Amino acid sequence: MKKMNTNEIEEAIKNLPGWALKDEMIMKSFTFKDFKEAFATMTHIAFECEKQNHHPNWENVYNRLTIKLSTHDADGITQKDIDLAKSIEEIVG
Amino acid sequence: MKKMNTNEIEEAIKNLPGWALKDEMIMKSFTFKDFKEAFATMTHIAFECEKQNHHPNWENVYNRLTIKLSTHDADGITQKDIDLAKSIEEIVG
Repeated sequence: MKKMNTNEIEEAIKNLPGWALKDEMIMKSFTFKDFKEAFATMTHIAFECEKQNHHPNWENVYNRLTIKLSTHDADGITQKDIDLAKSIEEIVG
Repeated sequence: MKKMNTNEIEEAIKNLPGWALKDEMIMKSFTFKDFKEAFATMTHIAFECEKQNHHPNWENVYNRLTIKLSTHDADGITQKDIDLAKSIEEIVG
């Protein structure tokens, strides 16, 4: 997996509303109705992560969820992160 | 729920190995075999949180999980946090 440069990342996340590049990760925060809804969505995302064999850095506090993606092996952002972000958008939809 | 003072907190977490007081929260980090095991444990904890109506600030990266507990309404640590930490220890056990 090839590490993307800043231009490539910015171009790729144009189609991912709310996602931003920060600290060499792409990130987005989500707010849900309550904890149950937040965790149910996390569970759905967790299965997708296993399927893609790619895992987030994510933090949850009650109804809020912040997801940060990067590719450890490439020491940066790769297409795997863009693909997972797209899947997350489809899940949260 | 009464906010506990530092002495009370230190006394209470004596029986909770690995839990430490930091930034007005009690926290502990756990390491699991892989993401699936980490997330399965989170799911178990999530149900307990709903039951106790008390929710963590928690962060997961692959097989690692960091849990921070405090009581928002009391602006500090209360017995609710100690109780939830005990339940988490029983779950992770």
